[in-house]
Formats: sequence, structure tokens, C-alpha cells
Amino acid sequence: METNKIPSKDEVLSAYNRVSSHVHRTPVLTSRLINEICGATVYFKCENFQKMGAFKMRGAVNSILQLTEAQKSAGVVTHSSGNFAQALALAAKNLGIKAYIVMPSNAPEVKKRAVKSYGGIITQSLPTLESREAEANKIEQSTGAVFIHPSNDINVILGQSTAAFEFLEDLPDLDYIFTPVGGGGLIAGTSMVCEYFSANCKSVGGEPLNANDAYRSLQSGKIETNISVNTVADGLRTNLGDKNFPIIKKFVSEIICVEENEIIAALQLIWERLKIVVEPSSAVALAALLKSKKKFQKKEVGIIISGGNVDLSNLPF
Amino acid sequence: METNKIPSKDEVLSAYNRVSSHVHRTPVLTSRLINEICGATVYFKCENFQKMGAFKMRGAVNSILQLTEAQKSAGVVTHSSGNFAQALALAAKNLGIKAYIVMPSNAPEVKKRAVKSYGGIITQSLPTLESREAEANKIEQSTGAVFIHPSNDINVILGQSTAAFEFLEDLPDLDYIFTPVGGGGLIAGTSMVCEYFSANCKSVGGEPLNANDAYRSLQSGKIETNISVNTVADGLRTNLGDKNFPIIKKFVSEIICVEENEIIAALQLIWERLKIVVEPSSAVALAALLKSKKKFQKKEVGIIISGGNVDLSNLPF
Repeated sequence: METNKIPSKDEVLSAYNRVSSHVHRTPVLTSRLINEICGATVYFKCENFQKMGAFKMRGAVNSILQLTEAQKSAGVVTHSSGNFAQALALAAKNLGIKAYIVMPSNAPEVKKRAVKSYGGIITQSLPTLESREAEANKIEQSTGAVFIHPSNDINVILGQSTAAFEFLEDLPDLDYIFTPVGGGGLIAGTSMVCEYFSANCKSVGGEPLNANDAYRSLQSGKIETNISVNTVADGLRTNLGDKNFPIIKKFVSEIICVEENEIIAALQLIWERLKIVVEPSSAVALAALLKSKKKFQKKEVGIIISGGNVDLSNLPF
Repeated sequence: METNKIPSKDEVLSAYNRVSSHVHRTPVLTSRLINEICGATVYFKCENFQKMGAFKMRGAVNSILQLTEAQKSAGVVTHSSGNFAQALALAAKNLGIKAYIVMPSNAPEVKKRAVKSYGGIITQSLPTLESREAEANKIEQSTGAVFIHPSNDINVILGQSTAAFEFLEDLPDLDYIFTPVGGGGLIAGTSMVCEYFSANCKSVGGEPLNANDAYRSLQSGKIETNISVNTVADGLRTNLGDKNFPIIKKFVSEIICVEENEIIAALQLIWERLKIVVEPSSAVALAALLKSKKKFQKKEVGIIISGGNVDLSNLPF
């Protein structure tokens, strides 16, 4: 039954046409030295330059644009301590609707301020998933706002697919597109684009070994949960869900697990060589390529840099 | 007599035509939030994405391209602990000639490694200007290599002018171009471009208050030396010279001095909002705009981001 839920090629194309005027078409960067190190031609799609600083803007915009007028008048609600909180708040603001954001009490002040600056209405929860879900549920009941999950929602997944769509439009000869794997929205969207719009391009995930639910889920064939989430890649501590896992299972070529020191080394390489500010989560895809570089020799490899919202006072080097 | 040494409009144009195929045409970035904070429309010309990570590549390329074949066969020599060392080494490598680089014994290992990776032949000097000059002189005598000064050399100044040339080509309506002021090569080149190729655009310098030789030189009308060089903007600790000062005196609109905390705040704003890795020196121009923002309300302001070579293990925040 799961496969019934996989969007069609037309739905992916429609999402691109719907979303593209509401987001930045982000640039692609390269580095001669990184090409030498990898033995491949590597292209970086810079979603750190996206509105609010991450690809999550794409999914937030697409999900709001799919609402009915009645739904829009009630607004949207989500729970997130990360980029999706900011993305939904900004997308809602840009599209003229209300966004209720449930944030755990231990979310960094800087993230709360960012959500507020985009006009998001913050409700504080306890720092547990149960409390976050309960608070979001209460808001849904009392306001009629539509709940939008950060990664396990078909419209969010379709929105995230637009980054890979642009990437393949710019570089039709890519052999692979690597993405980091957290909640599964980005890789699910990317894998559909590779499947539907390229004869050869395969989607590959990079995942922290310390939070490798997706790797283990592909191995077992069912959704596994994270045992630990002890990783510097704080955007990747979340779990797959029943909407994105069927897509990932069907279309993703492989997931490569990387260790913490490999993530930090890749992060440093990106900062020093590409001269861009990216989140630790963004480095996981390059770390995966570096780890398995023998396999990708002389290939054209795209990497989606997921975002650039990082606390400069707390860097891992 | 000094004014005899100021290059003509044709010479500036020739430099652009000579250099442009050897350097990256760097992108221009903007930030809605920075525009709001400044009350102006601000464009950042990103020389941190230049080859070897700084605008210095332009001057190095232009000076080598102006050598005779006999001079090229002997190579070039400079003394520098910073970006010009890397720039001359890489430009020489790309153009197939030798580069002798005198570096003080206390230069960071990372900079020495970068120069070596570009094929530069390093000679170590004591950490004094006298020793650096003496070592460079010895190499000149023994090898016949042509000495090229990092900032006080007309061909270097002409090379640096090509960044502003591209900037005005992309954005002909700029009212101002801000640059950081260190040795004076970049601002001298920029001021000639504004003078020769725009009816209105003025060049403005940002300089650390703690190393404000250029500000004081413009006040007194003669070259003043730095009393202290106690600034986080380590690329701006150098002094003006007799080749660039006449140009600066004639064409630069004003120089604005900024304090250390203002430099660091501007640096953080660039990293957090533009999501790019830039050197502290690069932030001095934005700090100057922020300090005098009343004067530049509603203007179109260009800022040249000078470079992005920074020691990630030693950040000021």
C-alpha cells in the first residue's frame, strides 16, 4: 500500500512550477582542490544561500501553496527547533498567513529570535517529542491551523525535490546527487527527481553513523529509529517517517554512514576551500563522497549543501 | 611630479582586457537584512571566491603579464606573509614562471604550506621589514628575478582595479564603492575606475582606527606611517607607498576609520547573513558603511569583499 503514496512525475514537475518563483534559484560552486581530492568533478548546490538559509524553505512554501483558502485563513502549525521552524514562519509571512511554531524550551535563543523576526507565533513545549506533539495538537484543535510536518509530508517532500530539479536542469550530466539524510524529506524528493528526470543520475545519502536510522531502515526494509543522536550534525538527528520511507526505499541508490571526525574534516574543507558558511549537517554528504571516493572516480557528482544556519560561537574547530 | 605617475583611462582599460581571462569574474551577493540595517542597497563583490581566495590574484597576474620574455625567464620575487605571497606564487605557476617568496619566520605554517602548494620557492627571513627586504634584494641580485611589491607597484594597482571595473560593468548605477585600506593597492585601483568609468560613483575607504595611516595621510597631505598595527584586520597592517598615495590623494572621496568591535560586528553580520567565509579585513568596508550610514541613506553602495583566507581555529567570535 505504501507505494500508492509515491508522487508521480507530473506532481514533481508541478511542484517545481509552483515553488520556483517563491524561492531563490541557488548557485552552484566548484573547487579545483576538492575535485583533486575526490578524483571526481564535484558540484555544490548552495542551499545555504536559500531564503532563511536552508532548503527547508522549499517544502514550507509548497505545503502552504497547496492549502485551500479556508485553510490559509486559519494558518499553519508545526513543531521544530531547527530550520523548518524558520522556514514555515517565513513562508507563511511571505504568503500572508499565520504560522504557529511549537519550539522546545531548550531551543537556542538565536533560533527563537529568528522565528519571531519572521513573524512566527511561538508556543513553548517541554523538550520531548510527546510534549511538542501535544502542544501542536492543542493549537490545531483551538485554531483550526493545518499541521505541517517538517519532513514526513508529501507536499514538503515535493517542495524539497525542487532543489534537485534545478540542479539537474543546470547540470543534466550529473551521475550522482548526494544529500545529507535526517528526517528524509530532502533525499526522498531528490531521489524522485533522479528517477523521473534523468536516465542515469542516482541519489546517494550521507548519514552520521551516530544517527543512522535511514541506513538501518534500508537494510531491514522497515523504519528503524535512531538509537543515539550523538552527532555534530544537529539537523540530522530526526527520524524517517511513513511518507518518505517508501520513496527512499524505492528510489535511493545507497546510504553511506560517516563518523564524526569525517564530518568535521569535510566541514572544514567546505569552509576553507569554497569560502562558504555551512551547517555541519551539510558536510555529511561530502564526507560520504570522500569516504567512498574510489567508487565515484571520474564521475560528475552533485552535492546539495543543505543550509548555513550555524552558531558562530560554537564551531567544531 | 607625483601626478605624472597616475595611469590613464586607457591603461586601466588595458589592464582589464589583459587580466580578465586569467581570473574569476567574481559574483555579487546581497542581503535583504543588511539593506534594512544600512538603509541603502548594498552589493558585495565577492573576491573571497577569487583564485587563491583574494583580490590580490588580479595584481599578481597583471604584473607578471607585463614582464618581458627575458624577465619572465628569470622569474619574480616578493616579500609577504599574507595573500600576496600566495597570489604571486599561483599567478607565476599558472603563467609558467618561477616565484621566489620571502616569508618572515613567524608567518603561519598554513600560509607557508599554501605558497608551497602553488609551487612558490620560499626563503625565510627574520620577522622584520629590513630582513624581508634584504632577503628579497639578495634573491633579485643572485637570480635576476623581478621584484614585485604587494601594493606599491603601478602594475599591481592596475591589476587590482579590475575588480571595481567588473563591479561597475555589472552595476553601472553604483553611487559608491567601499574597499578596505591596507597597503593602498586596492583602493587606488578602485578610485581610478570610479573616476574614469562613472560619472557619479565615488570610492570610499574603510580603515581600522588602530592602523589608520591612510586616513592620517589624506589629512596631512603626505605619507604617514602606522603608529600601531594592533588590529584584528591583519591584512590591513601595511602602509601606503609613493606609487599609490598620489592616486588615493587625487581620486578617493574619503576614508572612514572604524574600531575593533565595529569590525568584528560587521564580520559576524557577513558570515551570518551572506553565509560566506571572509577575512576580518574584508569586514572593515562594511563596518565603515555602518558607522556612517546616515550619509549613505537610499544610495546604491558596492562593497569589495577583499578575501576569505582565514584561520578557522582562531576566529574573533
